[in-house]
Amino acid sequence: MGKPLIFITNDDGYSARGLAALIEIGRKFGNVVVIAPEQPQSGKSHSITMYNPLYLRTIRKEEGLEVYACSGTPADCVKLAFDHLLADRLPDLTLSGINHGSNSAISVLYSGTMGAAIEASFYGRPSIGFSLTDHSADADFRAASAIAETVVAKTLASNIEMPMCLNINIPVGTPEQIRGVRVVRQNEGYWKETFVRRQDPRGNDYYWLTGDFYNAEPGATDTDEWALDNMYVSVVPIQVDMTNHRQVATLGAIFNE
Amino acid sequence: MGKPLIFITNDDGYSARGLAALIEIGRKFGNVVVIAPEQPQSGKSHSITMYNPLYLRTIRKEEGLEVYACSGTPADCVKLAFDHLLADRLPDLTLSGINHGSNSAISVLYSGTMGAAIEASFYGRPSIGFSLTDHSADADFRAASAIAETVVAKTLASNIEMPMCLNINIPVGTPEQIRGVRVVRQNEGYWKETFVRRQDPRGNDYYWLTGDFYNAEPGATDTDEWALDNMYVSVVPIQVDMTNHRQVATLGAIFNE
Repeated sequence: MGKPLIFITNDDGYSARGLAALIEIGRKFGNVVVIAPEQPQSGKSHSITMYNPLYLRTIRKEEGLEVYACSGTPADCVKLAFDHLLADRLPDLTLSGINHGSNSAISVLYSGTMGAAIEASFYGRPSIGFSLTDHSADADFRAASAIAETVVAKTLASNIEMPMCLNINIPVGTPEQIRGVRVVRQNEGYWKETFVRRQDPRGNDYYWLTGDFYNAEPGATDTDEWALDNMYVSVVPIQVDMTNHRQVATLGAIFNE
Repeated sequence: MGKPLIFITNDDGYSARGLAALIEIGRKFGNVVVIAPEQPQSGKSHSITMYNPLYLRTIRKEEGLEVYACSGTPADCVKLAFDHLLADRLPDLTLSGINHGSNSAISVLYSGTMGAAIEASFYGRPSIGFSLTDHSADADFRAASAIAETVVAKTLASNIEMPMCLNINIPVGTPEQIRGVRVVRQNEGYWKETFVRRQDPRGNDYYWLTGDFYNAEPGATDTDEWALDNMYVSVVPIQVDMTNHRQVATLGAIFNE
């Protein structure tokens, strides 16, 4: 058997501090291979690169650790790992992150971190996306790292039914301030944007996208938003059936012919 | 009340033939506003543009029709429509496509066409993504157009409970060859990639992503793959709760603390 093989990626790019935190944790449990984007890929969702070829650049190679940078998206990184670089020995576990910024609620859909974690789960091995609800460059990763280490240990030790893909968000705080971990569901809601309009030096208008999350169920006590608001780590198990099954029954009467 | 306001976008770009087909249909039912990407955006999923500002360029403005090109992704186009350009009068219906190529099964997750349709459904108005299972430049849109027109008429005439977002795929064939329309569920499966490795003139390896769909339930008779294989148009109602609810119960015992 040997040591577990742990694949790590992210959406903030190969030099991000959150990635370094996951590499440190991964090495405590097994051999680590990293393919992470050359460039920041926040908001890249589940995108894949169709019109350009992908480059893989070796960043670091030593006993138990290989790091590559990929010119594509987080999902591309996973595909290059599972269908090319590591196709002969699939990783036992995939970690994505630690993202700089929250990916709770509907943000799971826009998140490159979670795009990668979801993609990895298609290969029948567990995958976990980690996000710290702090966008700042000097974010404190201590609590997030301690939690990630515990989650990785539990995942490797447990016999969890596949597919398993976890969306884990960690509130900002010291390890002492965080009250615990809660497996919860995705909170309903969406992002409402305010566009900041400016003019470039040639007189053309341009817009910056800036949004606020609208919480459609502020009273819920079993969701990721509730957990984070109450200083718990949120763990949402992810699945990829987008079907609205209730509507399959009702809409047939309108559209079937 | 006046005429319905119909917003149209796509992921193949503002000059795509599939978009022209939807504009023609939209104008039969109401006033049409189009914001479509400047560049092809296939495989862009639900991505949004975080690191660059967005430009809107006027392509065409006439009675009942406005067309703009946007420098961003399909989801950006929708956000610019609903939270900026049309914020004072939200569209009554959003159409996305007609995509050149299938977006059935798990492809809904990678699709820019569906990223836009899903985003539009957050605003409480119906949205429909259309895809023709034919990537070729000279694809025949006649059957797809006839079906899209019927679906739009039914949607505007019916009192469907919101949110409503439909993922509609149309098999390749003449109108006579298409056997009907079926509201179905998303087929399980994933894309397995084969990377084509080449060398650039400077001696660096690069990779083209090319994949095949693995059908995890080839015997199913109630899915979009089944419908398309049997020359039916597939209609999958989409929802965005990614929670694996069954696992919320079981994984709490492992991860809660």
